[in-house]
Amino acid sequence: MSGNSFGTLYCVTSFGESHGPAYGGVVDGCPPGLALSADDIQKELDRRKPGSSRHVTQRRESDAVEILSGVYEGRTTGTAIGFIVRNEDSRSKDYAAIAEKFRPGHADYTYWQKYGIRDARGGGRASARETVVRVAAGAIAKKWLRERYGVTVRGYLAQLGAQKISFKSWDSVDANPFFSPDPAVVPQLEKFDADIAWAMMSINAVKGVEIGAGFESIVQKGSEHGDEMTPQGFVSNNNGGVLGGISTGQAVTVSIALKPTSSIRLPRRTINTRGEAVTIETTGRHDPCVGIRATPIAEAMLACILMDHALRHRAQCAEVTLPTKLEKPRKIN
Amino acid sequence: MSGNSFGTLYCVTSFGESHGPAYGGVVDGCPPGLALSADDIQKELDRRKPGSSRHVTQRRESDAVEILSGVYEGRTTGTAIGFIVRNEDSRSKDYAAIAEKFRPGHADYTYWQKYGIRDARGGGRASARETVVRVAAGAIAKKWLRERYGVTVRGYLAQLGAQKISFKSWDSVDANPFFSPDPAVVPQLEKFDADIAWAMMSINAVKGVEIGAGFESIVQKGSEHGDEMTPQGFVSNNNGGVLGGISTGQAVTVSIALKPTSSIRLPRRTINTRGEAVTIETTGRHDPCVGIRATPIAEAMLACILMDHALRHRAQCAEVTLPTKLEKPRKIN
Amino acid sequence: MSGNSFGTLYCVTSFGESHGPAYGGVVDGCPPGLALSADDIQKELDRRKPGSSRHVTQRRESDAVEILSGVYEGRTTGTAIGFIVRNEDSRSKDYAAIAEKFRPGHADYTYWQKYGIRDARGGGRASARETVVRVAAGAIAKKWLRERYGVTVRGYLAQLGAQKISFKSWDSVDANPFFSPDPAVVPQLEKFDADIAWAMMSINAVKGVEIGAGFESIVQKGSEHGDEMTPQGFVSNNNGGVLGGISTGQAVTVSIALKPTSSIRLPRRTINTRGEAVTIETTGRHDPCVGIRATPIAEAMLACILMDHALRHRAQCAEVTLPTKLEKPRKIN
Amino acid sequence: MSGNSFGTLYCVTSFGESHGPAYGGVVDGCPPGLALSADDIQKELDRRKPGSSRHVTQRRESDAVEILSGVYEGRTTGTAIGFIVRNEDSRSKDYAAIAEKFRPGHADYTYWQKYGIRDARGGGRASARETVVRVAAGAIAKKWLRERYGVTVRGYLAQLGAQKISFKSWDSVDANPFFSPDPAVVPQLEKFDADIAWAMMSINAVKGVEIGAGFESIVQKGSEHGDEMTPQGFVSNNNGGVLGGISTGQAVTVSIALKPTSSIRLPRRTINTRGEAVTIETTGRHDPCVGIRATPIAEAMLACILMDHALRHRAQCAEVTLPTKLEKPRKIN
Repeated sequence: MSGNSFGTLYCVTSFGESHGPAYGGVVDGCPPGLALSADDIQKELDRRKPGSSRHVTQRRESDAVEILSGVYEGRTTGTAIGFIVRNEDSRSKDYAAIAEKFRPGHADYTYWQKYGIRDARGGGRASARETVVRVAAGAIAKKWLRERYGVTVRGYLAQLGAQKISFKSWDSVDANPFFSPDPAVVPQLEKFDADIAWAMMSINAVKGVEIGAGFESIVQKGSEHGDEMTPQGFVSNNNGGVLGGISTGQAVTVSIALKPTSSIRLPRRTINTRGEAVTIETTGRHDPCVGIRATPIAEAMLACILMDHALRHRAQCAEVTLPTKLEKPRKIN
Repeated sequence: MSGNSFGTLYCVTSFGESHGPAYGGVVDGCPPGLALSADDIQKELDRRKPGSSRHVTQRRESDAVEILSGVYEGRTTGTAIGFIVRNEDSRSKDYAAIAEKFRPGHADYTYWQKYGIRDARGGGRASARETVVRVAAGAIAKKWLRERYGVTVRGYLAQLGAQKISFKSWDSVDANPFFSPDPAVVPQLEKFDADIAWAMMSINAVKGVEIGAGFESIVQKGSEHGDEMTPQGFVSNNNGGVLGGISTGQAVTVSIALKPTSSIRLPRRTINTRGEAVTIETTGRHDPCVGIRATPIAEAMLACILMDHALRHRAQCAEVTLPTKLEKPRKIN
Repeated sequence: MSGNSFGTLYCVTSFGESHGPAYGGVVDGCPPGLALSADDIQKELDRRKPGSSRHVTQRRESDAVEILSGVYEGRTTGTAIGFIVRNEDSRSKDYAAIAEKFRPGHADYTYWQKYGIRDARGGGRASARETVVRVAAGAIAKKWLRERYGVTVRGYLAQLGAQKISFKSWDSVDANPFFSPDPAVVPQLEKFDADIAWAMMSINAVKGVEIGAGFESIVQKGSEHGDEMTPQGFVSNNNGGVLGGISTGQAVTVSIALKPTSSIRLPRRTINTRGEAVTIETTGRHDPCVGIRATPIAEAMLACILMDHALRHRAQCAEVTLPTKLEKPRKIN
Repeated sequence: MSGNSFGTLYCVTSFGESHGPAYGGVVDGCPPGLALSADDIQKELDRRKPGSSRHVTQRRESDAVEILSGVYEGRTTGTAIGFIVRNEDSRSKDYAAIAEKFRPGHADYTYWQKYGIRDARGGGRASARETVVRVAAGAIAKKWLRERYGVTVRGYLAQLGAQKISFKSWDSVDANPFFSPDPAVVPQLEKFDADIAWAMMSINAVKGVEIGAGFESIVQKGSEHGDEMTPQGFVSNNNGGVLGGISTGQAVTVSIALKPTSSIRLPRRTINTRGEAVTIETTGRHDPCVGIRATPIAEAMLACILMDHALRHRAQCAEVTLPTKLEKPRKIN
């Protein structure tokens, strides 16, 4: 598997740099017959657009997705879905001042060390803009999960700097943990937690991943952490919906930590490509907070992993029937 | 790639259940010519053995690794290395009382739901004993990394329940972040953080993974988080040695959170395989704290991922030469 | 994917050398609930045993397969199936005379060039004995295909040297193309022909692979080659049951060409490890004709590929229903 | 690995249908620093263009490749190389007459059976036009192999229908087996033959693959087939440059058999999507002989596989040094 691909059966491959001609991706393995249009993808892409309310803004051409294959007369055909999003309005000149310097906390240093060459404009491959491909692939996964299994994947911003934001209800946010009304699909997905961790940590700027109680588990006693079961369901959800790498049927709860942006205007110490000490200030236009835009990206990655595992599960376990019909393994209140 | 394999070039496949005949693994892709004996692996396996000081205990046969292929006259041949560790002394009868019940917080419920069948003895596939395969594969990776690049992978226990344990020095512990005296290898490994996250979260009982400042990054300002560089090296290491998925050359620092064991003697509410409400007490012999034994396992997983990336890097970037020789990109004091 | 593994969902990993302690393999992805015993595998292994009728011979211990995991109370559990076959009776001393010489037409030269080290005893990794792992994995696939879909995989020896052997009926041979009574499974498997070609060519000694008319296609006209269809079925099967990489529902017909054994007693010119001209005669015990034993191996590989594709197909296309029920797409007459 | 990808380190993913907006691909794993322009790829694409001499024709826009990522200032950066080739001039109306019928010998029947949906225009995914992606990826591989190792990959048309075409010299053809002046690279590539077989058989229309003597091996004696070695080199090349899956250093010789085109004007018997007996004549514009255009496609696939194995070899075996310097293992005469 190449470095820019993930997924076994729902396999996503991405390419593109922030100031090159286009970003693009290939989704291989989507079941045939799913109704799919560019608009289905565009809606999710618009949720991650900087500096705009997604319902009123005039779309700039540079943000429009084009589907190149895998869809015929409005339905997926089962062949690979290729798509691109052109880059325009990129103002490469903004980057001339930092072309030979490394931004503290930014990947331009590591790309240069690894490859001996780098595209100094914008973040190159490490730009937050790379996430357009993940969000597009996630949009397809979300649609299939919803239509096939009634599963919803939702995220919300729980903390901004030191400021914790209390969760009220899904009605109060437009983005928010996944929840399945269909107990037939969720309690099944093996190595699910490891793949979630990979998917989340592969998002640029993510430095931590927790499932369920996460780091809080350290101070819990065994009698406190292990989620008791009753015929009506689970009493708690410290395991975040995953035990032994297999989903339990409860809501799968995942938390991620994002580092602050490295493209800031304050002068900072760094070196240049000749190894000399210099100071750097980043101009260009960048997000003040990547966290605000990260929600649809995290949702997309979780949706892709979930879809991949759902396909793998039905491949291996199509004949499994349980001797007893259990109640839905949900959390009770 | 199958569910029980990981790694692209240093590829580890594992099999075995806690109360079946044996655990075993296949390491495919190890370079030829590495001096390797069963003892090299056994030393690492002994570090994770429950209930014994590893230097004095008589080894029970059940813990002995046997190498079946890939080594000839004391050196690896480049072909697949197969090995097994037999299970003995398993006392399956201890499990009769819980054969039809699910332990709260344990994967026996999810395995049963997914596959419609489970090996009720011990933890089956989800047993902590499955980690013998990872530790064995990690032992080979650690040896190659040390001999080829002078890289050491070390871990330590930083918190036990609510008790934080301050780190004094590597001399004071016998297990401890990886550190490379060779700047040629580390600043190179792409998607490294995502693969670390996968590897750690794939360990049973791990519920959280952090790289560098991790969840602490949330409350850091950009000017505080981004690690400044000087010609002498990095000033701090909030990024934990990874930027944009590529290692920086600093020490790679990873933290993991382990949940408490689910096999406890206190009676707890659960259901049985017929969906009825029952209580459960787990007897059998189990670790009071998985955290104590987790250090060599986490080290092994990090070593395997590091070796895989080192091999992938030299495949793709063998011709890269930097125009300027930079100082070693280490943290300065 | 490592070099010693194949398959996406029914994934087979093999290890072992002909004169090391054991051969072994891991089958990952087998559906749970399949009745499976060591005998099911042993029967297929015995079909490839040299120098014996498989029904009467006393088994030597060295040929006995041991299942180490993935089976509980006689049924597969869905976890990885590990197994080994110990090597005994290996007479390494037979090889002393050729330890530093390369057999013409044998892989000992290429292994030595690639890895700088080789196990001179027997064929090492390139021995025909490596096929025990493939045959064992194929035995499991054949059983599942037969029980789940009624599919049989059969081969026969069609030519021995210049001697063509006419096929009479499956009754007259005990091994023979695969044939499905269930039209629901076969017309579905994409990239099927490429994976068959890989599987067959990966068998040591195979130098050619054909599907359907194969090389005969070159001299056929388009109007002659393309298999006409009627409501009763296909009129011919020049395509060998595969069109555009997808199986048609007809019998899948595959032919392979095996080179003669390279371990022969006639003196031949070669070089030694110091590059000097020498002559070589191979003693040891070897098959006069690998073709005779190749049938169960080819069957096993085809069964593994078929099972992998059947699992992948139901993952992606579980919801496909055709608007029209076609007649069984078999060859008529 | 998804169905539309191949290669472990030099990984090619393709998408596109013959009458959709575009074909495209992603090449992941190309080393950084390779000089690369659209023209390098275009030259190879033009070699496979139907109905034109490649040096004089005005290029129609529909055949022009556009590189979207992975190249900066004329050199590869080590990140994924995405590219597209737009489809224009497709005349979908030509296909109206056959929209509900299946062409004998064509994959439109199998795609429809597998996915329950198909793009009836042109060949859809099974069109010969899909090979533009392979040829583009092969162009990059050929350039790297030539610049890094001096390796050339060349093919020629050896038989057209019953007409055998004798090979005179590489000077007399513009396309022609691969040949390495650098003995350091070739004798090293494991599972090489199986991957070649996969790559060739994955080309639409290919029904047979041979390496070296191929099917001719069946009638050869062991003393005749095994290639003798002298200090000056190999005496013959029946093994086609591959032993035990590892290349020997001789020229690697591969033959493929192509079936005739299934899109012919003669009326033939078939069924329609309702299962009724009908006759079919294919209009539209199609190649009279796919064999003529197949040479650059086969070259491209061999180049991709060779590059993938060269990268994998140097990952695993970078430290291998042979105790004796052997003469170049070429065929003598």
